Amino acid sequence: MNNNHYITIMAGGVGSRFWPASTEETPKQFLDILGVGKSLLRLTFERFLKMVPADHILIVTNKRYKALTQEHLPELPERNILCEPSRNNTGPCVAYTALRLKAENPDAIFVTAPSDHVILKEDAFLEKIKQAFHFVENNNAIVTLGIQPTRPDTGYGYIETDCRCEGEMEDASVGVCSVNAFREKPDKNTAKEYIEAGNYLWNAGIFIWKASELIVSFKDNAPDIIKVLSEDLNKYNTEEEQSYIDEVYPNTPSISVDYAILERADNVYTIPADIGWSDLGTWNSLHAFLDKDENETVTLGANTHLINTSGSIIRSDSNKIVVVKGLENYIVVDEPGALLIYPKNDEQEIKQIVKSLNKK
Amino acid sequence: MNNNHYITIMAGGVGSRFWPASTEETPKQFLDILGVGKSLLRLTFERFLKMVPADHILIVTNKRYKALTQEHLPELPERNILCEPSRNNTGPCVAYTALRLKAENPDAIFVTAPSDHVILKEDAFLEKIKQAFHFVENNNAIVTLGIQPTRPDTGYGYIETDCRCEGEMEDASVGVCSVNAFREKPDKNTAKEYIEAGNYLWNAGIFIWKASELIVSFKDNAPDIIKVLSEDLNKYNTEEEQSYIDEVYPNTPSISVDYAILERADNVYTIPADIGWSDLGTWNSLHAFLDKDENETVTLGANTHLINTSGSIIRSDSNKIVVVKGLENYIVVDEPGALLIYPKNDEQEIKQIVKSLNKK
Repeated sequence: MNNNHYITIMAGGVGSRFWPASTEETPKQFLDILGVGKSLLRLTFERFLKMVPADHILIVTNKRYKALTQEHLPELPERNILCEPSRNNTGPCVAYTALRLKAENPDAIFVTAPSDHVILKEDAFLEKIKQAFHFVENNNAIVTLGIQPTRPDTGYGYIETDCRCEGEMEDASVGVCSVNAFREKPDKNTAKEYIEAGNYLWNAGIFIWKASELIVSFKDNAPDIIKVLSEDLNKYNTEEEQSYIDEVYPNTPSISVDYAILERADNVYTIPADIGWSDLGTWNSLHAFLDKDENETVTLGANTHLINTSGSIIRSDSNKIVVVKGLENYIVVDEPGALLIYPKNDEQEIKQIVKSLNKK
Repeated sequence: MNNNHYITIMAGGVGSRFWPASTEETPKQFLDILGVGKSLLRLTFERFLKMVPADHILIVTNKRYKALTQEHLPELPERNILCEPSRNNTGPCVAYTALRLKAENPDAIFVTAPSDHVILKEDAFLEKIKQAFHFVENNNAIVTLGIQPTRPDTGYGYIETDCRCEGEMEDASVGVCSVNAFREKPDKNTAKEYIEAGNYLWNAGIFIWKASELIVSFKDNAPDIIKVLSEDLNKYNTEEEQSYIDEVYPNTPSISVDYAILERADNVYTIPADIGWSDLGTWNSLHAFLDKDENETVTLGANTHLINTSGSIIRSDSNKIVVVKGLENYIVVDEPGALLIYPKNDEQEIKQIVKSLNKK
């Protein structure tokens, strides 16, 4: 391994579209949402452990999830859990990790990765990360993994590359492409155009960058963020870091790193990657991802009895008896505090429902 | 009050069609199935308390429900809980109560009533019971309340009376009719014929009889039951009664009191009664009985949020958040150990499902 390589895993989100499995108390990344006996955070952590030792992995999360993080990752040094005192989106969060890592190691190169995605082709993934590390080591570059799209999904952001034809794209899959632009989640027709055009990739939110160069990029592209966090650089990587962050971090503007850096910087590259990726952003994407029975139904929970039920996802405590008849394309999620029975195709409404329930 | 009047309430059943609310551990009669803050047993007990004191009310139940019965009816003397050591249907159960009450009071007249039905018109009901007591006091008669049917229900047994025309029936409602025959649960067409004929009533399983005369009737019509229980009559109404019953009761044949006595005796009468009765035998009958929202849905549970849901019954722990969209004519019952999501019109299948689950 290279001593300059670090991994930062963002684990502060709530994933309210996975309500009622995911709640403010136990967000998605802490759930065994795949039914494999390990949380998504744990799976992500173990994936990177094959590349760097535990003390080169940082978890950025909300203060309230620190204990939960320690519980899920007992081998992680406590000082490697960075606590955001407030939710200010991903921009300030990434800037903070860059400042911390630069203080720890001026030559630090690091991956920024979500904690709640799934990657099936682990070897291919790690190979791409290695490639990205290598490219960033030798170029002043920001690299994002670009997932080769398999369908005109409207739930993802797209990366427009300069590799225009399919042939180039295939070549590019072993190389690096320049990024022309980042595209927000498109409508159905636009998504189809992207797929047909052949030079669009899904933005998986996995970035590789050099701490020192990223700080410069923040100064150029999002000075309001970096200024707030740079008030006293001597605090980073010391025992006073957390109390300093508690003080200054809430004053940063809430901006996504996509908007703050990626859409503005002119040194952004992408590495096309076929890695069996899913963001597991919704019950539908989880349904698409998991093994289904002969009626296209996913069952998570050992004691479930289904009759004439198809195209559905049924999740419950493994000991609870669940008897369901006659549901088609439904989400059924039973948790101790809440029960959801909802048409799968209306799942985008769930977030709003959770919001209105929380207001009551 | 008349010191010879007693009430016996049968509370040994399981009500498996109300699974998963009703279970072997907590059968239907111990549930607050109406959402009023009191169990059906408690409601039945309180109804009769207006007529006789607590020490004139006996509860017949299974041994395992004795503690539960005491919990629900703390003012009931412990000796008034008669425990069946085995489930031998209602015949032996009624014979036992007759023997016990005759030993307690040779002139005892008593009501046999289910513990898990509902009666809305309490005053009318108590008036009919009074009438029945009076009739049995003055005649060697067995009286059953006959519920005036409101629809051709195939879930109830019917009583064929000798009051043939509607006019007579109306007269009879303030009087007593002879019973021609008891009819088992009919098919739809037969049920319609019964309703059109006008001389059929629903059999609610509420009987009024004199202990001494009923014992004679058992000797005539079901000698195999009474013989087993009469081995040592001196044990009744003593401290040895329970251990004696534990010994002999399991040897009685398992026969319903309808078959053992009512269908055979020639002194059976019925009092037509319009008392807002339901046996609450199934989720459908509960749905029919309870207040519904504008979409014909019954909600039991304070924290339920329904969207486009109609004709359904949704029951949950009152604190649990339940979000349901798009169900039509469904039963949703959420209990700590089990969740049922089932088409309301298929509810007769539930009993069989519970049976097969218990086998596993």
